[in-house]
Amino acid sequence: MSKKRPLILVSNDDGISAPGIRYLIRLMKRLGDVFVVAPNSPQSGMSHAITLESMLFSEMVSKEESKVTEYSCSGTPVDCVKLAMNKLLARKPDLCVSGINHGANSSVNVLYSGTMAAALEGTIAGVPSIGFSLLDYSQDADFSQSEEHVLRIARHTLENGLPSGICLNVNIPKLIREQIKGIKVCRQSNGYWEENFDERMNPMGKKYYWLTGKFYNYDKGKDTDIWALENGYVSVVPVKFDLTAHDHIQQLYFLNHE
Amino acid sequence: MSKKRPLILVSNDDGISAPGIRYLIRLMKRLGDVFVVAPNSPQSGMSHAITLESMLFSEMVSKEESKVTEYSCSGTPVDCVKLAMNKLLARKPDLCVSGINHGANSSVNVLYSGTMAAALEGTIAGVPSIGFSLLDYSQDADFSQSEEHVLRIARHTLENGLPSGICLNVNIPKLIREQIKGIKVCRQSNGYWEENFDERMNPMGKKYYWLTGKFYNYDKGKDTDIWALENGYVSVVPVKFDLTAHDHIQQLYFLNHE
Repeated sequence: MSKKRPLILVSNDDGISAPGIRYLIRLMKRLGDVFVVAPNSPQSGMSHAITLESMLFSEMVSKEESKVTEYSCSGTPVDCVKLAMNKLLARKPDLCVSGINHGANSSVNVLYSGTMAAALEGTIAGVPSIGFSLLDYSQDADFSQSEEHVLRIARHTLENGLPSGICLNVNIPKLIREQIKGIKVCRQSNGYWEENFDERMNPMGKKYYWLTGKFYNYDKGKDTDIWALENGYVSVVPVKFDLTAHDHIQQLYFLNHE
Repeated sequence: MSKKRPLILVSNDDGISAPGIRYLIRLMKRLGDVFVVAPNSPQSGMSHAITLESMLFSEMVSKEESKVTEYSCSGTPVDCVKLAMNKLLARKPDLCVSGINHGANSSVNVLYSGTMAAALEGTIAGVPSIGFSLLDYSQDADFSQSEEHVLRIARHTLENGLPSGICLNVNIPKLIREQIKGIKVCRQSNGYWEENFDERMNPMGKKYYWLTGKFYNYDKGKDTDIWALENGYVSVVPVKFDLTAHDHIQQLYFLNHE
Protein backbone atom coordinates (compact mmCIF):
# COMPACT_ATOMS: atom_id res chain seq x y z
CA MET A 1 0.00 0.00 0.00
CA SER A 2 2.69 2.48 1.01
CA LYS A 3 4.30 2.42 -2.43
CA LYS A 4 1.01 2.72 -4.27
CA ARG A 5 0.41 5.95 -6.16
CA PRO A 6 -2.53 7.89 -4.73
CA LEU A 7 -5.84 7.69 -6.59
CA ILE A 8 -7.32 11.14 -7.26
CA LEU A 9 -10.91 11.74 -8.38
CA VAL A 10 -11.37 14.94 -10.41
CA SER A 11 -14.65 16.64 -11.25
CA ASN A 12 -15.98 20.16 -11.91
CA ASP A 13 -19.08 22.07 -12.94
CA ASP A 14 -17.90 23.82 -16.10
CA GLY A 15 -17.83 20.51 -17.97
CA ILE A 16 -15.15 18.00 -18.91
CA SER A 17 -13.67 20.09 -21.71
CA ALA A 18 -13.32 23.34 -19.73
CA PRO A 19 -9.75 24.70 -19.56
CA GLY A 20 -9.91 24.76 -15.73
CA ILE A 21 -10.39 21.00 -15.33
CA ARG A 22 -7.86 20.25 -18.08
CA TYR A 23 -5.29 22.25 -16.13
CA LEU A 24 -6.24 20.58 -12.82
CA ILE A 25 -5.88 17.11 -14.40
CA ARG A 26 -2.36 18.04 -15.58
CA LEU A 27 -1.39 19.10 -12.06
CA MET A 28 -2.96 16.06 -10.37
CA LYS A 29 -1.05 13.67 -12.69
CA ARG A 30 2.08 14.78 -10.86
CA LEU A 31 0.62 13.55 -7.57
CA GLY A 32 -1.08 10.30 -8.48
CA ASP A 33 -3.31 8.27 -10.76
CA VAL A 34 -6.16 10.45 -11.96
CA PHE A 35 -9.76 9.37 -12.46
CA VAL A 36 -12.05 11.98 -13.99
CA VAL A 37 -15.85 11.93 -13.92
CA ALA A 38 -17.14 15.31 -15.07
CA PRO A 39 -20.31 16.70 -16.65
CA ASN A 40 -20.63 16.52 -20.44
CA SER A 41 -22.09 20.05 -20.47
CA PRO A 42 -21.75 23.22 -18.34
CA GLN A 43 -23.38 22.84 -14.92
CA SER A 44 -22.56 26.17 -13.29
CA GLY A 45 -24.94 27.16 -10.53
CA MET A 46 -26.17 23.58 -10.09
CA SER A 47 -25.29 23.55 -6.41
CA HIS A 48 -25.86 20.17 -4.71
CA ALA A 49 -28.52 19.09 -7.24
CA ILE A 50 -28.93 15.39 -8.00
CA THR A 51 -30.77 13.75 -10.88
CA LEU A 52 -33.83 11.95 -9.52
CA GLU A 53 -36.45 12.33 -12.25
CA SER A 54 -34.26 11.23 -15.14
CA MET A 55 -31.62 8.67 -16.03
CA LEU A 56 -27.89 9.29 -16.32
CA PHE A 57 -25.62 8.50 -19.24
CA SER A 58 -21.90 8.12 -18.73
CA GLU A 59 -19.11 7.03 -21.03
CA MET A 60 -15.37 6.60 -20.95
CA VAL A 61 -13.90 9.33 -23.11
CA SER A 62 -10.21 8.57 -22.70
CA LYS A 63 -7.77 6.29 -20.94
CA GLU A 64 -4.02 6.79 -20.64
CA GLU A 65 -3.08 3.48 -18.93
CA SER A 66 -3.76 3.86 -15.22
CA LYS A 67 -2.50 7.45 -15.20
CA VAL A 68 -5.63 9.22 -16.38
CA THR A 69 -9.04 7.64 -16.99
CA GLU A 70 -11.84 9.99 -18.02
CA TYR A 71 -15.61 9.56 -17.99
CA SER A 72 -18.15 12.15 -19.05
CA CYS A 73 -21.57 12.11 -17.42
CA SER A 74 -24.92 13.63 -18.41
CA GLY A 75 -25.69 14.63 -14.81
CA THR A 76 -24.77 17.28 -12.28
CA PRO A 77 -21.39 17.59 -10.53
CA VAL A 78 -22.79 15.74 -7.48
CA ASP A 79 -24.13 12.97 -9.76
CA CYS A 80 -20.59 12.65 -11.19
CA VAL A 81 -19.04 12.17 -7.75
CA LYS A 82 -21.74 9.70 -6.66
CA LEU A 83 -21.36 7.72 -9.90
CA ALA A 84 -17.59 7.66 -9.53
CA MET A 85 -17.66 6.53 -5.89
CA ASN A 86 -20.43 3.95 -6.22
CA LYS A 87 -20.06 2.54 -9.72
CA LEU A 88 -17.01 3.52 -11.76
CA LEU A 89 -14.10 3.50 -9.32
CA ALA A 90 -12.59 0.19 -8.23
CA ARG A 91 -11.60 1.62 -4.86
CA LYS A 92 -12.21 4.67 -2.67
CA PRO A 93 -10.03 7.53 -3.91
CA ASP A 94 -7.42 9.13 -1.65
CA LEU A 95 -8.40 12.64 -2.70
CA CYS A 96 -11.29 14.30 -4.52
CA VAL A 97 -10.64 17.63 -6.25
CA SER A 98 -13.09 19.78 -8.14
CA GLY A 99 -12.45 22.65 -10.54
CA ILE A 100 -10.56 24.67 -11.33
CA ASN A 101 -13.75 26.69 -11.56
CA HIS A 102 -13.96 29.58 -14.00
CA GLY A 103 -15.08 32.28 -11.55
CA ALA A 104 -15.20 32.92 -7.80
CA ASN A 105 -16.81 30.61 -5.27
CA SER A 106 -16.09 32.84 -2.32
CA SER A 107 -18.69 34.13 0.14
CA VAL A 108 -22.29 33.02 -0.43
CA ASN A 109 -21.36 31.68 -3.89
CA VAL A 110 -20.31 28.47 -2.17
CA LEU A 111 -24.05 27.68 -1.89
CA TYR A 112 -24.80 27.95 -5.61
CA SER A 113 -21.59 26.36 -6.82
CA GLY A 114 -21.59 22.97 -8.50
CA THR A 115 -17.81 22.85 -8.12
CA MET A 116 -18.02 23.17 -4.34
CA ALA A 117 -20.96 20.76 -4.16
CA ALA A 118 -18.83 18.09 -5.89
CA ALA A 119 -16.11 18.62 -3.29
CA LEU A 120 -18.62 18.52 -0.43
CA GLU A 121 -20.08 15.31 -1.82
CA GLY A 122 -16.59 13.80 -1.72
CA THR A 123 -16.42 14.79 1.95
CA ILE A 124 -19.81 13.21 2.66
CA ALA A 125 -18.45 9.99 1.16
CA GLY A 126 -15.49 10.18 3.54
CA VAL A 127 -12.83 11.29 1.04
CA PRO A 128 -10.60 14.35 1.72
CA SER A 129 -11.87 16.87 -0.81
CA ILE A 130 -10.99 20.31 -2.18
CA GLY A 131 -12.74 22.71 -4.56
CA PHE A 132 -10.55 25.15 -6.52
CA SER A 133 -11.76 28.33 -8.22
CA LEU A 134 -10.00 31.11 -10.13
CA LEU A 135 -11.47 34.62 -10.10
CA ASP A 136 -11.58 34.77 -13.89
CA TYR A 137 -14.69 33.80 -15.88
CA SER A 138 -13.07 33.91 -19.31
CA GLN A 139 -12.48 30.77 -21.36
CA ASP A 140 -8.83 31.78 -21.95
CA ALA A 141 -8.16 32.41 -18.24
CA ASP A 142 -4.56 31.79 -17.21
CA PHE A 143 -4.59 29.04 -14.60
CA SER A 144 -0.81 28.73 -14.38
CA GLN A 145 -0.44 31.26 -11.55
CA SER A 146 -2.29 28.84 -9.29
CA GLU A 147 0.14 25.97 -9.85
CA GLU A 148 2.23 26.29 -6.69
CA HIS A 149 -0.77 26.81 -4.39
CA VAL A 150 -2.97 24.08 -5.86
CA LEU A 151 -0.12 21.57 -5.61
CA ARG A 152 0.79 22.66 -2.08
CA ILE A 153 -2.75 22.32 -0.73
CA ALA A 154 -3.47 19.07 -2.60
CA ARG A 155 -0.17 17.50 -1.52
CA HIS A 156 -0.76 18.46 2.08
CA THR A 157 -4.28 17.03 2.01
CA LEU A 158 -3.04 13.78 0.46
CA GLU A 159 -0.39 13.43 3.17
CA ASN A 160 -2.44 14.48 6.19
CA GLY A 161 -6.10 14.18 5.26
CA LEU A 162 -8.65 16.70 6.52
CA PRO A 163 -10.82 16.83 9.65
CA SER A 164 -13.89 14.60 9.22
CA GLY A 165 -16.86 16.37 7.63
CA ILE A 166 -14.76 19.26 6.26
CA CYS A 167 -13.71 20.15 2.72
CA LEU A 168 -11.66 23.11 1.54
CA ASN A 169 -12.98 25.96 -0.59
CA VAL A 170 -9.91 27.42 -2.30
CA ASN A 171 -10.21 30.63 -4.33
CA ILE A 172 -7.32 32.07 -6.32
CA PRO A 173 -7.15 35.78 -7.17
CA LYS A 174 -6.74 36.89 -10.78
CA LEU A 175 -3.15 38.02 -10.41
CA ILE A 176 0.14 37.08 -11.95
CA ARG A 177 2.22 34.62 -9.97
CA GLU A 178 4.53 37.22 -8.43
CA GLN A 179 1.62 39.31 -7.19
CA ILE A 180 0.03 36.50 -5.15
CA LYS A 181 1.09 37.12 -1.56
CA GLY A 182 0.37 33.66 -0.18
CA ILE A 183 -2.44 31.61 1.36
CA LYS A 184 -4.91 32.67 4.07
CA VAL A 185 -7.21 30.30 5.94
CA CYS A 186 -10.39 32.28 6.58
CA ARG A 187 -14.17 32.24 6.88
CA GLN A 188 -16.95 32.70 4.32
CA SER A 189 -17.71 36.41 3.95
CA ASN A 190 -21.29 37.54 4.46
CA GLY A 191 -22.09 38.81 0.96
CA TYR A 192 -25.26 39.01 -1.06
CA TRP A 193 -26.38 39.10 -4.70
CA GLU A 194 -28.65 41.97 -5.58
CA GLU A 195 -30.57 40.28 -8.35
CA ASN A 196 -32.19 41.71 -11.38
CA PHE A 197 -34.32 39.89 -13.93
CA ASP A 198 -33.69 41.11 -17.45
CA GLU A 199 -37.16 40.96 -19.04
CA ARG A 200 -37.54 40.18 -22.77
CA MET A 201 -40.21 39.06 -25.21
CA ASN A 202 -39.87 36.00 -27.42
CA PRO A 203 -41.01 36.09 -31.09
CA MET A 204 -44.41 34.67 -30.01
CA GLY A 205 -44.92 37.58 -27.61
CA LYS A 206 -44.26 35.57 -24.47
CA LYS A 207 -42.30 37.21 -21.67
CA TYR A 208 -39.12 35.62 -20.40
CA TYR A 209 -36.32 36.51 -17.99
CA TRP A 210 -32.57 36.23 -17.65
CA LEU A 211 -31.17 36.19 -14.14
CA THR A 212 -28.54 38.91 -13.69
CA GLY A 213 -27.12 40.44 -10.54
CA LYS A 214 -24.43 42.34 -8.76
CA PHE A 215 -22.56 41.02 -5.75
CA TYR A 216 -22.23 43.12 -2.60
CA ASN A 217 -19.97 42.28 0.29
CA TYR A 218 -21.46 43.63 3.51
CA ASP A 219 -18.83 41.98 5.66
CA LYS A 220 -15.78 44.12 6.42
CA GLY A 221 -13.97 41.43 8.46
CA LYS A 222 -10.29 40.92 7.68
CA ASP A 223 -10.74 37.21 8.44
CA THR A 224 -12.97 36.64 5.38
CA ASP A 225 -12.34 35.10 1.99
CA ILE A 226 -13.32 38.30 0.19
CA TRP A 227 -10.77 40.29 2.20
CA ALA A 228 -8.05 37.74 1.49
CA LEU A 229 -8.77 37.75 -2.26
CA GLU A 230 -8.96 41.53 -2.49
CA ASN A 231 -5.63 41.72 -0.73
CA GLY A 232 -3.76 39.33 -3.01
CA TYR A 233 -4.09 36.07 -1.10
CA VAL A 234 -5.37 32.64 -2.06
CA SER A 235 -8.32 32.07 0.32
CA VAL A 236 -8.96 28.71 2.00
CA VAL A 237 -12.28 28.24 3.82
CA PRO A 238 -13.05 24.98 5.65
CA VAL A 239 -16.60 24.08 4.60
CA LYS A 240 -18.97 21.65 6.31
CA PHE A 241 -22.18 19.88 5.37
CA ASP A 242 -23.76 20.14 8.81
CA LEU A 243 -25.97 23.17 8.19
CA THR A 244 -27.28 23.27 11.78
CA ALA A 245 -26.99 26.68 13.41
CA HIS A 246 -25.84 25.07 16.66
CA ASP A 247 -25.55 28.44 18.43
CA HIS A 248 -29.26 29.05 17.92
CA ILE A 249 -30.71 25.72 19.06
CA GLN A 250 -31.17 26.78 22.69
CA GLN A 251 -32.61 30.14 21.66
CA LEU A 252 -35.42 28.27 19.86
CA TYR A 253 -36.28 25.90 22.70
CA PHE A 254 -39.46 27.88 23.36
CA LEU A 255 -40.84 26.14 20.24
CA ASN A 256 -40.50 22.80 22.04
CA HIS A 257 -43.93 21.53 22.76
CA GLU A 258 -45.35 18.31 24.17
CA MET B 1 -48.71 49.01 8.87
CA SER B 2 -49.88 47.36 12.09
CA LYS B 3 -53.34 46.59 10.69
CA LYS B 4 -52.00 45.25 7.41
CA ARG B 5 -52.37 41.55 6.78
CA PRO B 6 -48.98 39.84 6.56
CA LEU B 7 -47.67 39.00 3.08
CA ILE B 8 -46.55 35.37 2.81
CA LEU B 9 -44.45 33.99 -0.06
CA VAL B 10 -45.00 30.27 -0.72
CA SER B 11 -42.82 28.00 -2.85
CA ASN B 12 -41.81 24.34 -3.01
CA ASP B 13 -39.86 21.83 -5.09
CA ASP B 14 -42.56 19.30 -5.96
CA GLY B 15 -44.21 21.79 -8.32
CA ILE B 16 -47.15 24.17 -8.06
CA SER B 17 -49.82 21.47 -8.40
CA ALA B 18 -48.42 19.11 -5.73
CA PRO B 19 -50.85 18.35 -2.89
CA GLY B 20 -48.30 19.51 -0.30
CA ILE B 21 -48.13 23.10 -1.56
CA ARG B 22 -51.91 23.22 -2.13
CA TYR B 23 -52.38 22.30 1.54
CA LEU B 24 -49.76 24.84 2.70
CA ILE B 25 -51.47 27.61 0.69
CA ARG B 26 -54.78 26.78 2.41
CA LEU B 27 -53.14 27.07 5.84
CA MET B 28 -51.26 30.29 5.03
CA LYS B 29 -54.48 31.99 3.84
CA ARG B 30 -55.57 31.92 7.46
CA LEU B 31 -52.50 33.97 8.44
CA GLY B 32 -52.20 36.53 5.65
CA ASP B 33 -52.17 37.39 1.97
CA VAL B 34 -50.51 34.60 0.03
CA PHE B 35 -48.22 35.03 -2.97
CA VAL B 36 -47.13 31.79 -4.62
CA VAL B 37 -44.21 31.39 -7.02
CA ALA B 38 -43.54 27.70 -7.54
CA PRO B 39 -41.96 25.49 -10.20
CA ASN B 40 -44.15 24.40 -13.10
CA SER B 41 -42.61 20.89 -12.91
CA PRO B 42 -41.15 18.67 -10.19
CA GLN B 43 -37.76 19.94 -8.97
CA SER B 44 -36.94 17.45 -6.22
CA GLY B 45 -33.25 17.13 -5.49
CA MET B 46 -32.48 20.47 -7.14
CA SER B 47 -30.81 21.82 -4.01
CA HIS B 48 -29.71 25.46 -4.29
CA ALA B 49 -29.44 25.32 -8.10
CA ILE B 50 -30.07 28.50 -10.11
CA THR B 51 -30.68 28.85 -13.83
CA LEU B 52 -27.72 30.60 -15.42
CA GLU B 53 -27.43 29.05 -18.88
CA SER B 54 -31.06 29.40 -19.84
CA MET B 55 -33.96 31.84 -19.60
CA LEU B 56 -36.92 31.62 -17.24
CA PHE B 57 -40.60 31.68 -18.09
CA SER B 58 -43.14 32.66 -15.50
CA GLU B 59 -46.87 33.28 -15.68
CA MET B 60 -49.70 34.14 -13.38
CA VAL B 61 -51.87 31.07 -13.05
CA SER B 62 -54.51 32.38 -10.67
CA LYS B 63 -55.52 35.39 -8.61
CA GLU B 64 -58.11 35.48 -5.87
CA GLU B 65 -58.16 39.25 -5.18
CA SER B 66 -55.23 40.01 -2.88
CA LYS B 67 -55.77 36.83 -0.89
CA VAL B 68 -53.89 34.38 -3.12
CA THR B 69 -51.88 35.24 -6.23
CA GLU B 70 -50.11 32.36 -7.97
CA TYR B 71 -47.28 32.31 -10.48
CA SER B 72 -45.70 29.24 -12.00
CA CYS B 73 -42.05 29.40 -13.05
CA SER B 74 -39.97 27.23 -15.36
CA GLY B 75 -36.95 27.38 -13.04
CA THR B 76 -35.72 25.84 -9.82
CA PRO B 77 -37.13 26.54 -6.34
CA VAL B 78 -34.37 29.09 -5.71
CA ASP B 79 -35.14 30.78 -9.06
CA CYS B 80 -38.77 31.05 -7.90
CA VAL B 81 -37.83 32.81 -4.68
CA LYS B 82 -35.39 35.16 -6.44
CA LEU B 83 -37.97 36.01 -9.11
CA ALA B 84 -40.62 36.64 -6.46
CA MET B 85 -38.40 38.88 -4.34
CA ASN B 86 -36.82 40.85 -7.18
CA LYS B 87 -39.51 41.06 -9.85
CA LEU B 88 -42.98 39.84 -9.00
CA LEU B 89 -43.65 41.02 -5.47
CA ALA B 90 -44.52 44.66 -4.83
CA ARG B 91 -42.95 44.55 -1.37
CA LYS B 92 -40.73 42.35 0.75
CA PRO B 93 -42.81 39.52 2.23
CA ASP B 94 -43.13 39.08 5.98
CA LEU B 95 -42.64 35.34 5.78
CA CYS B 96 -41.39 32.82 3.23
CA VAL B 97 -42.56 29.20 3.52
CA SER B 98 -41.64 26.26 1.35
CA GLY B 99 -43.30 22.86 1.02
CA ILE B 100 -45.00 20.96 2.34
CA ASN B 101 -42.47 18.61 0.80
CA HIS B 102 -43.51 15.08 -0.08
CA GLY B 103 -40.78 13.20 1.78
CA ALA B 104 -38.21 13.81 4.53
CA ASN B 105 -35.66 16.61 4.50
CA SER B 106 -34.07 15.58 7.76
CA SER B 107 -30.37 14.85 8.25
CA VAL B 108 -28.12 15.26 5.18
CA ASN B 109 -31.19 15.50 2.93
CA VAL B 110 -31.28 19.21 3.74
CA LEU B 111 -28.36 19.59 1.31
CA TYR B 112 -30.13 18.02 -1.68
CA SER B 113 -33.54 19.52 -0.99
CA GLY B 114 -35.02 22.15 -3.28
CA THR B 115 -37.68 22.84 -0.65
CA MET B 116 -35.09 23.75 1.96
CA ALA B 117 -33.01 25.71 -0.58
CA ALA B 118 -36.06 27.90 -1.32
CA ALA B 119 -36.41 28.60 2.42
CA LEU B 120 -32.70 29.31 2.78
CA GLU B 121 -32.87 31.69 -0.19
CA GLY B 122 -35.64 33.56 1.63
CA THR B 123 -33.31 33.86 4.62
CA ILE B 124 -30.48 35.16 2.44
CA ALA B 125 -32.86 37.85 1.20
CA GLY B 126 -33.58 38.81 4.82
CA VAL B 127 -37.06 37.27 5.13
CA PRO B 128 -37.92 34.91 8.02
CA SER B 129 -38.26 31.54 6.29
CA ILE B 130 -39.38 27.99 7.01
CA GLY B 131 -39.26 24.76 5.02
CA PHE B 132 -41.87 22.10 5.85
CA SER B 133 -41.66 18.41 4.94
CA LEU B 134 -43.87 15.40 5.62
CA LEU B 135 -42.32 11.94 5.86
CA ASP B 136 -44.61 10.54 3.19
CA TYR B 137 -43.65 10.42 -0.48
CA SER B 138 -47.03 9.40 -1.80
CA GLN B 139 -49.19 11.73 -3.89
CA ASP B 140 -52.18 11.03 -1.65
CA ALA B 141 -50.28 11.73 1.56
CA ASP B 142 -52.44 13.10 4.39
CA PHE B 143 -51.09 16.54 5.28
CA SER B 144 -53.87 17.37 7.72
CA GLN B 145 -52.04 15.96 10.76
CA SER B 146 -49.49 18.72 10.37
CA GLU B 147 -52.05 21.53 10.60
CA GLU B 148 -51.59 22.54 14.22
CA HIS B 149 -47.79 22.43 14.10
CA VAL B 150 -47.37 24.24 10.78
CA LEU B 151 -49.68 27.01 11.95
CA ARG B 152 -48.01 27.26 15.35
CA ILE B 153 -44.49 27.58 13.92
CA ALA B 154 -45.53 29.93 11.09
CA ARG B 155 -47.54 32.15 13.44
CA HIS B 156 -44.70 32.37 15.88
CA THR B 157 -42.23 33.27 13.12
CA LEU B 158 -44.56 35.96 11.80
CA GLU B 159 -44.89 37.48 15.24
CA ASN B 160 -41.28 37.24 16.39
CA GLY B 161 -39.12 36.78 13.32
CA LEU B 162 -36.08 34.51 13.37
CA PRO B 163 -32.42 35.16 14.23
CA SER B 164 -30.62 36.73 11.24
CA GLY B 165 -29.16 34.19 8.81
CA ILE B 166 -31.27 31.29 10.14
CA CYS B 167 -34.21 29.42 8.63
CA LEU B 168 -36.16 26.51 10.09
CA ASN B 169 -36.15 22.98 8.71
CA VAL B 170 -39.40 21.42 9.95
CA ASN B 171 -40.07 17.72 9.39
CA ILE B 172 -43.35 16.06 10.29
CA PRO B 173 -43.58 12.33 11.05
CA LYS B 174 -46.04 10.16 9.15
CA LEU B 175 -48.41 9.66 12.05
CA ILE B 176 -52.01 10.44 12.77
CA ARG B 177 -52.64 13.66 14.67
CA GLU B 178 -53.09 12.01 18.06
CA GLN B 179 -49.82 10.10 17.76
CA ILE B 180 -47.67 13.20 17.25
CA LYS B 181 -46.12 13.92 20.64
CA GLY B 182 -45.12 17.54 19.98
CA ILE B 183 -42.25 19.61 18.61
CA LYS B 184 -38.51 19.20 19.28
CA VAL B 185 -35.86 21.76 18.33
CA CYS B 186 -32.79 19.73 17.42
CA ARG B 187 -29.72 19.38 15.21
CA GLN B 188 -29.21 17.78 11.80
CA SER B 189 -28.40 14.09 12.27
CA ASN B 190 -25.21 12.75 10.71
CA GLY B 191 -26.66 10.33 8.17
CA TYR B 192 -25.52 9.08 4.82
CA TRP B 193 -26.98 7.69 1.59
CA GLU B 194 -25.45 4.43 0.47
CA GLU B 195 -25.99 4.87 -3.25
CA ASN B 196 -26.50 2.33 -5.92
CA PHE B 197 -26.73 2.95 -9.65
CA ASP B 198 -29.29 0.74 -11.29
CA GLU B 199 -27.71 -0.08 -14.66
CA ARG B 200 -29.88 -0.60 -17.76
CA MET B 201 -29.54 -0.68 -21.53
CA ASN B 202 -31.58 1.50 -23.86
CA PRO B 203 -33.04 0.07 -27.13
CA MET B 204 -29.94 1.35 -29.00
CA GLY B 205 -27.66 -0.66 -26.71
CA LYS B 206 -26.40 2.33 -24.75
CA LYS B 207 -25.92 1.95 -21.00
CA TYR B 208 -27.74 4.26 -18.60
CA TYR B 209 -28.22 4.55 -14.86
CA TRP B 210 -30.88 5.39 -12.31
CA LEU B 211 -29.70 6.72 -9.00
CA THR B 212 -31.08 4.66 -6.11
CA GLY B 213 -29.99 4.42 -2.52
CA LYS B 214 -30.63 3.57 1.06
CA PHE B 215 -30.32 6.02 3.93
CA TYR B 216 -28.31 5.11 7.03
CA ASN B 217 -28.29 7.14 10.21
CA TYR B 218 -24.93 6.74 11.94
CA ASP B 219 -25.76 9.30 14.58
CA LYS B 220 -27.33 7.92 17.74
CA GLY B 221 -27.74 11.33 19.43
CA LYS B 222 -31.10 12.00 21.07
CA ASP B 223 -30.73 15.67 20.11
CA THR B 224 -31.05 14.93 16.37
CA ASP B 225 -33.89 15.35 13.91
CA ILE B 226 -33.90 11.63 13.07
CA TRP B 227 -34.31 10.73 16.75
CA ALA B 228 -37.15 13.22 17.15
CA LEU B 229 -38.99 11.91 14.08
CA GLU B 230 -38.52 8.26 15.04
CA ASN B 231 -39.92 9.08 18.46
CA GLY B 232 -43.07 10.77 17.27
CA TYR B 233 -42.01 14.44 17.33
CA VAL B 234 -42.07 17.17 14.71
CA SER B 235 -38.37 18.12 14.30
CA VAL B 236 -37.24 21.74 13.95
CA VAL B 237 -33.61 22.37 12.98
CA PRO B 238 -32.26 25.93 12.68
CA VAL B 239 -30.32 25.99 9.40
CA LYS B 240 -27.75 28.55 8.28
CA PHE B 241 -26.11 29.50 5.00
CA ASP B 242 -22.70 30.20 6.46
CA LEU B 243 -21.04 26.87 5.61
CA THR B 244 -17.75 27.80 7.31
CA ALA B 245 -16.50 25.17 9.75
CA HIS B 246 -15.51 27.88 12.23
CA ASP B 247 -14.18 25.36 14.75
CA HIS B 248 -11.62 24.15 12.24
CA ILE B 249 -10.18 27.46 11.03
CA GLN B 250 -7.39 27.60 13.59
CA GLN B 251 -6.54 23.94 13.07
CA LEU B 252 -5.78 24.75 9.42
CA TYR B 253 -3.63 27.81 10.07
CA PHE B 254 -0.53 25.79 9.16
CA LEU B 255 -1.69 26.20 5.54
CA ASN B 256 -1.22 29.97 5.90
CA HIS B 257 1.74 30.97 3.82
CA GLU B 258 3.31 34.28 2.84
